[in-house]
Amino acid sequence: MTPPPTDAVLAGLSLAEKAALTSGTRFWYTESVERLQLPSVMLTDGPHGLRKQRAGGDHLGIGDSVPATCFPPAAALGSSWDVDLVERVGAALGTEAAHADVGVLLGPGLNIKRSPLCGRNFEYLSEDPLVSGVLAAALVAGIQSRGVGACPKHFAANNQEHDRMRVSADIDPRPLREIYLRGFQHVVTEAHPWAIMCSYNRINGVHAAEDPWLLTTVLRDQWCFAGLVVSDWGAVNDRVAALIAGLDLDMPGSAFADAQIIDAVAAGSLDEDVLDCSVRRVVDLVRRTGAPPAAATFDTDEHHALAREAAGRGIVLLKNDDGLLPLPTRTHIAVIGEFAQSPRYQGAGSSTIVPTRLDCALDEIRLQATGDVVFARGFTTAAEPPPGEADRLLDEAVGAAAHAEVAVVFLGLPARCESEGFDRDDLDLPVAQLRLLDAVVAVNPRTVVVLSNGGVVALPFASTVPAILEGWLLGQAGGAATADVLFGAVNPSAKLTETIPVRVHDTPAYLAYPGEFGHVRYGEGLFVGYRWYDARCLEVAFPFGHGLSYTSFDYADAVATVNSAGGLDVSVTVTNTGDVAGREIVQVYTSLPGSDVSRPPRELKAFTSVHLDTGASTRATMTIRRQDLAYWDIRVDRWVVEGGTYTVDVAASSRDVRCTVSVAVDGDDLDIPLSPMSSLAEVFAHPVAGPVVASAFAEQMTSLSGGDGLMPKVDMSRMLDSFPIGKVGMLASAAGVEVDPAMISELLDRANDPPD
Amino acid sequence: MTPPPTDAVLAGLSLAEKAALTSGTRFWYTESVERLQLPSVMLTDGPHGLRKQRAGGDHLGIGDSVPATCFPPAAALGSSWDVDLVERVGAALGTEAAHADVGVLLGPGLNIKRSPLCGRNFEYLSEDPLVSGVLAAALVAGIQSRGVGACPKHFAANNQEHDRMRVSADIDPRPLREIYLRGFQHVVTEAHPWAIMCSYNRINGVHAAEDPWLLTTVLRDQWCFAGLVVSDWGAVNDRVAALIAGLDLDMPGSAFADAQIIDAVAAGSLDEDVLDCSVRRVVDLVRRTGAPPAAATFDTDEHHALAREAAGRGIVLLKNDDGLLPLPTRTHIAVIGEFAQSPRYQGAGSSTIVPTRLDCALDEIRLQATGDVVFARGFTTAAEPPPGEADRLLDEAVGAAAHAEVAVVFLGLPARCESEGFDRDDLDLPVAQLRLLDAVVAVNPRTVVVLSNGGVVALPFASTVPAILEGWLLGQAGGAATADVLFGAVNPSAKLTETIPVRVHDTPAYLAYPGEFGHVRYGEGLFVGYRWYDARCLEVAFPFGHGLSYTSFDYADAVATVNSAGGLDVSVTVTNTGDVAGREIVQVYTSLPGSDVSRPPRELKAFTSVHLDTGASTRATMTIRRQDLAYWDIRVDRWVVEGGTYTVDVAASSRDVRCTVSVAVDGDDLDIPLSPMSSLAEVFAHPVAGPVVASAFAEQMTSLSGGDGLMPKVDMSRMLDSFPIGKVGMLASAAGVEVDPAMISELLDRANDPPD
Repeated sequence: MTPPPTDAVLAGLSLAEKAALTSGTRFWYTESVERLQLPSVMLTDGPHGLRKQRAGGDHLGIGDSVPATCFPPAAALGSSWDVDLVERVGAALGTEAAHADVGVLLGPGLNIKRSPLCGRNFEYLSEDPLVSGVLAAALVAGIQSRGVGACPKHFAANNQEHDRMRVSADIDPRPLREIYLRGFQHVVTEAHPWAIMCSYNRINGVHAAEDPWLLTTVLRDQWCFAGLVVSDWGAVNDRVAALIAGLDLDMPGSAFADAQIIDAVAAGSLDEDVLDCSVRRVVDLVRRTGAPPAAATFDTDEHHALAREAAGRGIVLLKNDDGLLPLPTRTHIAVIGEFAQSPRYQGAGSSTIVPTRLDCALDEIRLQATGDVVFARGFTTAAEPPPGEADRLLDEAVGAAAHAEVAVVFLGLPARCESEGFDRDDLDLPVAQLRLLDAVVAVNPRTVVVLSNGGVVALPFASTVPAILEGWLLGQAGGAATADVLFGAVNPSAKLTETIPVRVHDTPAYLAYPGEFGHVRYGEGLFVGYRWYDARCLEVAFPFGHGLSYTSFDYADAVATVNSAGGLDVSVTVTNTGDVAGREIVQVYTSLPGSDVSRPPRELKAFTSVHLDTGASTRATMTIRRQDLAYWDIRVDRWVVEGGTYTVDVAASSRDVRCTVSVAVDGDDLDIPLSPMSSLAEVFAHPVAGPVVASAFAEQMTSLSGGDGLMPKVDMSRMLDSFPIGKVGMLASAAGVEVDPAMISELLDRANDPPD
Repeated sequence: MTPPPTDAVLAGLSLAEKAALTSGTRFWYTESVERLQLPSVMLTDGPHGLRKQRAGGDHLGIGDSVPATCFPPAAALGSSWDVDLVERVGAALGTEAAHADVGVLLGPGLNIKRSPLCGRNFEYLSEDPLVSGVLAAALVAGIQSRGVGACPKHFAANNQEHDRMRVSADIDPRPLREIYLRGFQHVVTEAHPWAIMCSYNRINGVHAAEDPWLLTTVLRDQWCFAGLVVSDWGAVNDRVAALIAGLDLDMPGSAFADAQIIDAVAAGSLDEDVLDCSVRRVVDLVRRTGAPPAAATFDTDEHHALAREAAGRGIVLLKNDDGLLPLPTRTHIAVIGEFAQSPRYQGAGSSTIVPTRLDCALDEIRLQATGDVVFARGFTTAAEPPPGEADRLLDEAVGAAAHAEVAVVFLGLPARCESEGFDRDDLDLPVAQLRLLDAVVAVNPRTVVVLSNGGVVALPFASTVPAILEGWLLGQAGGAATADVLFGAVNPSAKLTETIPVRVHDTPAYLAYPGEFGHVRYGEGLFVGYRWYDARCLEVAFPFGHGLSYTSFDYADAVATVNSAGGLDVSVTVTNTGDVAGREIVQVYTSLPGSDVSRPPRELKAFTSVHLDTGASTRATMTIRRQDLAYWDIRVDRWVVEGGTYTVDVAASSRDVRCTVSVAVDGDDLDIPLSPMSSLAEVFAHPVAGPVVASAFAEQMTSLSGGDGLMPKVDMSRMLDSFPIGKVGMLASAAGVEVDPAMISELLDRANDPPD
């Protein structure tokens, strides 16, 4: 039954009911108003599956929810770089939510992976805002196609778990806009999510929940967001300030907070119109979620199959020397490692799903193999194993490896090492696992490593082990997908959406993470992820965008042209030059040599993927939106496309550029008036003031460049370039002349507003 | 003649005279008031020599000043790490100033070398605030011992030349206090300079000249500075705002600015008491400078000899494989490189001295040598040499080197590459010089490189050339000093006060330097210089504190104890274990394992130098002042010594630790009241609130850690550590319980103010 129109509901509400509607009830629900036929709506955790807790009981008892398909968490799903696949997963999530009578699924998560140490990175898509924004938009489109609201989170700059409820992310305007908000801007403007979730943290000193700049100026005024802003659970600190800032729905909410609203209206410190505005958005959301487009039923087998497909598309083949992979099914394999039988397939915290079923790699390998498969646990994930157990497990594994043709070693982070709520201390795999691997490789160099980890780990064995699969956390069907890739049923096509660094000391935020005493300075600025490693010329273990295939691809004939919208159309011919069909993710990076602003050597601006049979060619086409070429200009506080000849790199990874072309782009108009603080260089460049000032200086410059043979020759023009014109009086007084500042002001006024 | 008392002068002044007194006249002078017998005082450029321009003419025509001894610029002088030597140089500077009737010498310069690209680094002492502060204090003491005022500059955070008049140095509180202000705090509180010069730039958005926080709160209220604040020439933007902020003397000043003061007093927007206060400081300065303690005469030969001694103490022996140096005087030497005959001995800009005489290394080598000395220019410093000249010069040099026993190659930065007023683009020596060196080494591996450069340069030949002398810019007697070191008349003892990095990409401020559009973010925070390279485990070419000797030193028996002032007394036995007498600079670094705040792995806290005959031992003693152990605590906005067991490294360089001891230090009392935003960990640690809250949580925690076999085990206590106590209501509501926030506030009030 559709609720009555919003205006009718609003007109019928008492002040107390309005206040109550802007905060939740029973931890997961909006308030209902039965008198007005306004039902309650459930909002519940995603993002890669439904965590709908059973009624009653403790709502933080994370294990007690209804079974749902556990799709691959974002770290794996994002590695597909495939909007179609991601949208299909989104639709399946929406279907399951609708089936469970959930109105809003809390996801996707698209915070930037600023540091690999962030405990919640497994829930996030990338270190790059374009990948994050585009894939998050696909998830939103999929979820909402089923009549369920999506809720991108955590808005914004929630890039660490340490002290997340207090810490202020102190970020300068350019990185804030170009890195941390850009993905949110993309998803809001392209996918129109019904809701967005504010984060716990502060940004430049202000809690997101109470930040009118973030929730109103940026989100609603600049991005035209028309949906509902919901708090992360417990994010509101001052209910009235949050309402005024634009936070509509306080979750889980409390009667104490409602009372503050009522008191504030009574006291005149809160305009009831502000409250009405948020109530209207809550009612709008309830009305929207009340009418899913179709009866929501689903086949758990079909969804499991989709989870398997997505998992296979998320496994990154990091390395494959001498074509060790895929393994012939007849291979005598030693499967080693606890994770082969007890998979680590999702992260800890609010996103923890009770899966409908759970594959394990060992079973699936046995199912697909035709040769001998022996298994050894290799290690235990117990924090404190019994004495001697580690050695016993290692010896057993070495024995198995020694007699096998190939050893497949499943390594990974124990579940206790990464979680929502706290950050990792280091990038390291447990010492026992590394020791095991060394011992296995010593007896059998034909070793494949399969990794299970939410955030990236250091890979000290990257040069010694011939084949490595980055398996992330793959969801409930990850075991089958891993077997699919090992035996070649699936040709891997995933690529890294984050850099794997050599060591934690090299990471951009190192030394400025996670901050102290409530502040964390994003000192690396724009240079996050590959932008940092490239700009600082640092070696990495595996670069952003990297991922191998069982086939090979050739790139040729790249073309980039300006399109009618002022953006760029980029195309390239891709050919499958290997022996099997495969999918290739094609990436486009730009740079602007000689730019007026600091820029990374390469920034991702577009990507696509193509599936090609062996020997086949296709023309891969991509569009760079004009706004994605823009930088945030702090002089005018807006996005600006700088004119110039851009370098366009068409690449297989951020460090594997295949074709480079150049294209001239007209810049946006920028009219920055001259002021007394304008530099002489800026004045000289001005069409009106320039010639006047230049001629006045020509004489003076000669006398300034004096000196005799003993003196170093000073480049006076270089010294004067940044000299403010308002201070030329100082130079003149050196020659005994006093210059009236008013004279300069008049000159500038004339230059800024020349007569027609 | 001594001017009348300040009060009498002040009482006799008209408003216009007061205004005029707070700004300069004739570019270099304070105003005189003949009616009141108040003379004019000259302030003129240092810092490593007197640049007193001749009367008349253009005051920026830098070449036209009276001859003065050009002592080694700060980059070289600082490398001595020797307060006695530096104070003697200061006294000589003071004598020359007094002799020339100069009241205030504008120096020392002690800005931190944040980036090696800063064009003015040659005028600065170190990348470390302790070295900067201690040596600047010695210079001030020396200058002022002659009745001449010193004027430390440029206060503050003037760490680049690019856009120096507009750029805002955006710095967080800890690095601002601990790195960029700490040296100034040292010199102000220990050496009591008569004046201090504000810088051109802005700090966190506010021009130094108009910053009441900087010039009054920090400088006068916190540091008790009693002297005069003078502007850098042209630094004042708003004369009235500057007066109110605490800027006493506007140089060079103008009648237009004076009129603004008069108008503001008339309009009531400037309290005349504020003006009086600055006038009083100007008159005080004039009175102080009016009475030098003795007739100032000096012997130019003596000062040249001091310049030679100081230069010899500033040359850093970076490398000396197989004891190639010192050279026997009978050696057949090929002296190669234009700088051997045309020395680069000082930097460009306002510090450019007309020297009383000028040594060149080639002449001095010929003077001291008893074997053959041949010379080849090797390269030209001309920006655009005639075609073929480079090859011709190279061939000639190679011929000379091939026939010599040793090649001594003088390389360096051409004068046009570094200057006040602009920054360097890169760290590189000119390509022609590197090519020359390669060619010379190819024919004569017994090659010594002597460097002339103000800022550090990349040394791609560091591993291939057996001996390298870092000669900086050595002042007018640098040529003789270089010969002294080459032949062993002087045993080198200097050590680096700044790191020589491998490449510019490794430097801390890279990518955040020099900023754009008027802002530069000091994103590396505390991690400047060696603090960065050590914390990021980066290789360097030569580390901070490094410098070799022709002898060797053994360190033993280090002891560190807490002294009665709460600081540390550190001592170590140093023994000259080599064949010649020598001087060793001993360094003490501290760290605090497990500190609550971010800290570099090692921070310099004390240093001394000892001169030892061969075989001799001495006990080197150093004191770490308690305040130098402190960090700046942003919670309470003050210096705090954290309690704990400090690691004390006694070292020959930042990467050559010889002895390590530990010492327990009592921390300062810190009483930070609990608030609703206090984390549970902070509350648990509280003696009153802790036990109450802990017991209340014990039960709840059990129910929170639920889950079943499929669920990852979450470390709830780690998740809750940073959970604000004011938000526990959210946790409680998960269990269906509502907690009144007032109850929590009451608990905290009781904890903060327990009954006696």
